[in-house]
Amino acid sequence: MAESMRGLHRTHRCTEVSKSNVGEAVTVMGWVQKRRNLGSLVFVDLRDRSGLLQIVFDEKDVGSEGFEKAGTLRNEYVIAVEGTAEVRSGAVNENLKTGDIEIRAKSLRILSEALTPPFPIEEECSTKEELRLKYRYLDLRRPNLQRNLAVKSRVAILSRNFMQEQGFLEVETPILVKSTPEGARDYLVPSRIHPGNFYALPQSPQIYKQLLMCSGFDRYFQIARCFRDEDLRADRQPEFTQMDMELSFADVDDVIEVNEKLLAYLMKEICDVEVKLPIRRMTYAEAMDRFGSDKPDLRFGMELHDVSDAVRNCGFAVFCNALEAGGSVRGLTVKGQAGMPRKKIDSLVEFAKTYGAKGLAYLAVQEDGSYKSSFAKFMTEDELTALVKAMDGEPGDLLLFAADKNKVVFDSLGALRVELAKRLEMIPENTFEFVWITEFPQFEYSEEEQRFVAMHHPFTMPMDEDLPLLDTDRGAVRAKAYDIVLNGCEIGGGSVRIHQSDVQAKMFECLGFSKEEAEERFGFLMNAFKYGVPPHAGLAYGLDRLVMLMTGADNIREVIAFPKVKDASCLMSGAPGRVDEDQLTELKIAVSETSL
Amino acid sequence: MAESMRGLHRTHRCTEVSKSNVGEAVTVMGWVQKRRNLGSLVFVDLRDRSGLLQIVFDEKDVGSEGFEKAGTLRNEYVIAVEGTAEVRSGAVNENLKTGDIEIRAKSLRILSEALTPPFPIEEECSTKEELRLKYRYLDLRRPNLQRNLAVKSRVAILSRNFMQEQGFLEVETPILVKSTPEGARDYLVPSRIHPGNFYALPQSPQIYKQLLMCSGFDRYFQIARCFRDEDLRADRQPEFTQMDMELSFADVDDVIEVNEKLLAYLMKEICDVEVKLPIRRMTYAEAMDRFGSDKPDLRFGMELHDVSDAVRNCGFAVFCNALEAGGSVRGLTVKGQAGMPRKKIDSLVEFAKTYGAKGLAYLAVQEDGSYKSSFAKFMTEDELTALVKAMDGEPGDLLLFAADKNKVVFDSLGALRVELAKRLEMIPENTFEFVWITEFPQFEYSEEEQRFVAMHHPFTMPMDEDLPLLDTDRGAVRAKAYDIVLNGCEIGGGSVRIHQSDVQAKMFECLGFSKEEAEERFGFLMNAFKYGVPPHAGLAYGLDRLVMLMTGADNIREVIAFPKVKDASCLMSGAPGRVDEDQLTELKIAVSETSL
Repeated sequence: MAESMRGLHRTHRCTEVSKSNVGEAVTVMGWVQKRRNLGSLVFVDLRDRSGLLQIVFDEKDVGSEGFEKAGTLRNEYVIAVEGTAEVRSGAVNENLKTGDIEIRAKSLRILSEALTPPFPIEEECSTKEELRLKYRYLDLRRPNLQRNLAVKSRVAILSRNFMQEQGFLEVETPILVKSTPEGARDYLVPSRIHPGNFYALPQSPQIYKQLLMCSGFDRYFQIARCFRDEDLRADRQPEFTQMDMELSFADVDDVIEVNEKLLAYLMKEICDVEVKLPIRRMTYAEAMDRFGSDKPDLRFGMELHDVSDAVRNCGFAVFCNALEAGGSVRGLTVKGQAGMPRKKIDSLVEFAKTYGAKGLAYLAVQEDGSYKSSFAKFMTEDELTALVKAMDGEPGDLLLFAADKNKVVFDSLGALRVELAKRLEMIPENTFEFVWITEFPQFEYSEEEQRFVAMHHPFTMPMDEDLPLLDTDRGAVRAKAYDIVLNGCEIGGGSVRIHQSDVQAKMFECLGFSKEEAEERFGFLMNAFKYGVPPHAGLAYGLDRLVMLMTGADNIREVIAFPKVKDASCLMSGAPGRVDEDQLTELKIAVSETSL
Repeated sequence: MAESMRGLHRTHRCTEVSKSNVGEAVTVMGWVQKRRNLGSLVFVDLRDRSGLLQIVFDEKDVGSEGFEKAGTLRNEYVIAVEGTAEVRSGAVNENLKTGDIEIRAKSLRILSEALTPPFPIEEECSTKEELRLKYRYLDLRRPNLQRNLAVKSRVAILSRNFMQEQGFLEVETPILVKSTPEGARDYLVPSRIHPGNFYALPQSPQIYKQLLMCSGFDRYFQIARCFRDEDLRADRQPEFTQMDMELSFADVDDVIEVNEKLLAYLMKEICDVEVKLPIRRMTYAEAMDRFGSDKPDLRFGMELHDVSDAVRNCGFAVFCNALEAGGSVRGLTVKGQAGMPRKKIDSLVEFAKTYGAKGLAYLAVQEDGSYKSSFAKFMTEDELTALVKAMDGEPGDLLLFAADKNKVVFDSLGALRVELAKRLEMIPENTFEFVWITEFPQFEYSEEEQRFVAMHHPFTMPMDEDLPLLDTDRGAVRAKAYDIVLNGCEIGGGSVRIHQSDVQAKMFECLGFSKEEAEERFGFLMNAFKYGVPPHAGLAYGLDRLVMLMTGADNIREVIAFPKVKDASCLMSGAPGRVDEDQLTELKIAVSETSL
């Protein structure tokens, strides 16, 4: 039976009671973490958001009825205890903030009984995630999830205060918006009042924040919910949170400056880490060349070597063919791993194949200077020497090579570099390496759609000097776009926007939108630009991912209170679910037969 | 042609330039508010978010090309000006913050040309709202909308900081949720991965915040987007923003205490108004009895008088019939309005009829003590004297009566009281009268559904002493629910929640949910409660409405950046709109024929 808390008033959270309260009457409330009967006493560890506190029930203080009740307490019961704070009678528990005190109970009420939870409510939990997500309300009782969400709350409020001081206004933009064609899929919302018409949920507040710049808001900020109906990858969510900003009369450096200050502030406040400013910058081209990735992890070295020149006329056909087809040959020098067993090398080859590589060539430089290699037999001694030199290879090193189209070489070696660093434990802990990646390509060619698509989005400004290339060499156009990367994760990105109607029209043309299509989809933004638009630029962070890195959480679901799983469903609520037929009738939509 | 801002860096916003900068080189950027050619000079009022600043173009400073360009400037062009701050050569403009200075231009760039806007960008704007909403990006340039949104941003950040200090964590709850049956209509979102299934957009984070209490978060806060697919009334929006909170181990007084502090803080910071605490409290019954409304405007008197006893056996059949049918007769005493022309009284009668009244009876007490009345002829002199006495009527007063079912009497007189106060200008300006309304009925009877429905929501705790009435007299059960009312507007409301499974089961039964239905809809909340739930209570504010009252805005659309209109459409973007047929195919839904 649940008792009422009428007449009681909590005086302290569990860890708010300290030695300074000894002798005082206190009232505490929380969950039973553990009960032990020891001789004539009952001990209970009481838990709330703040932590644990020990309660002692002694029949001579709490009475026989209370004592009997205390004996029935089970884990996760919610109780209220009136008592007196005392110096702990038994051994001090050094692991607890309240380890030197306890509460001697005078009264006990059971506010809520509890079934045995399907998994223990503890910091470390080996229960599989599906079950934990089904009982998310219990999973969220675990101290690490409580901490993660507290950090997220703190990151949000610190950011808001910082941005306000920098002159940004937080403005809410709509969730029920118009569908746009670019990028990932929109979630649609049927309109009851306008049958056959749909709202879309925004993939980002992009258009609205640009309109706010047109409206003269000067500096906009928002922690905004965004939605993408994508096939889910490991750490994507159908709804996620962006920390979004836009600045008027700003160019690349203005955006970078304010964001460096923000990041340094957050890192100091949340992780007690000093970020040295300015954060280094690297062009996209350099990042790909050195790390095979536009989000390089700079916590360790092991950069890519381009050995194309060294092998251009060698006897190994795989290398030569790749070069003749316009690709490249690049490699990783893995220090001191010449003795890696063949089985492990094979698993690296398999790993590289998942990134499109047809294979990996390897060459181990033995301590005695001889080679063990998959391809040495095809090359002369001189060719091998030149190759090892181009790789800065030394005795004891393992050299791994990919030869293919540049994209495949970069993708596979970039991923392999990170995978190797993990397997070989080359990544230092508690290190935070930031880098700005700049000068992204304006377009990437979509094999699927057989056309150029915007790499960032269709409002991104090309670099001034590359504007003429829009007509002659689209693939070479670089954009005023930038990403901020932390420890090999892209945590944010943005760009300077096009504010000139003629450049924007050109851009739509490059992307293959007809005038009508552009008008239909972006008409109101293009119209807005006709009435006086300031140059503007912006950036958005993936807040969930940023908090994940700051807390060291394993995946993004550990920093979201009620996440969805890969198939975009919620294991706790069962969403999405069936709805009443008359709801659909009212919306004038029907579920097509194929799905019934 | 749009010029680039390359090489320029804004040094000041318009009103950041002051006399202390005289002689300094400054670079300012903004919109042309006005250009005047005066003799050999061109004057431009430059506008940005901060306000206006005068620029002087003199050919001998800016060169002939620059001067010519200045002469072509039109309203809303976006320009960048390098120049020198000087003491104003002409008359000081007392109305401007920068009225004593001006910028002598050395260079001018036109960053963006502008078409003539369809309405002037000015504080006061008589342009009809439809046009302003179509060009919302221009409307938002008006200083009053800029101010309103700045206030909203400030209310949000002040509230967040305050709540954080009070131990609340901001936790984000999902937007893609499961559909629930109670209350207004859900917006639905078809799932592509699970054809035939739908997400709903949340009407509030209610269930999730209760789950967070089960999870031990203790104090939760969120500024949350909510959605209701309702037929739109004047100041409703399909999406709106709640300032939402929930507290564990809390009863009515705990919620009221923290919210009084919050409101007093906001009123002081935003409106420089001291709110005297504690805010007065009034039961629902008293509010209805005295003001005919559960959101009484206490900025003026003119309370309702119950004259049922005085007229119980009188000769006027309208009064007697209402009483015999179980209704009441109540009236308003309008001081000094005995001389109100018949035409005006008629319009009051018409007004009352829109609230369900069949009419209004009136009696004017003339200065000489005689009566002018619609019904005096049916009553004796004594009866009339008793009636006037019951109304505290004095010579010069106009007495207005409604006789009907209580609901109709309250609705019509409650609304009439406010309408009269407006017409007679009885409402003092810059007055903020708060009141808590408590002890709401647990249920209201829905004539439409022929059953009791939850007045607040199905998780609301009945008052302890009324629990037995759940079985015997549902209509009389009072809830631990409360609203906070400001100047006759409900700005927030909440309740203590049921945390006992048996009471909750009873409640679902009272509301006519079968066990299966309750299980299907609220199963995961009810399950959560089985694992130890603390007593908890909460409250949510309509943030838009609160900001509307604080800014004195006329309607809720004036405090929302991109609002929708009555039919839930956005006049600017055209949302909702048609989507590609293949998007629907992929979602496995079809628009039914009837709507094509």
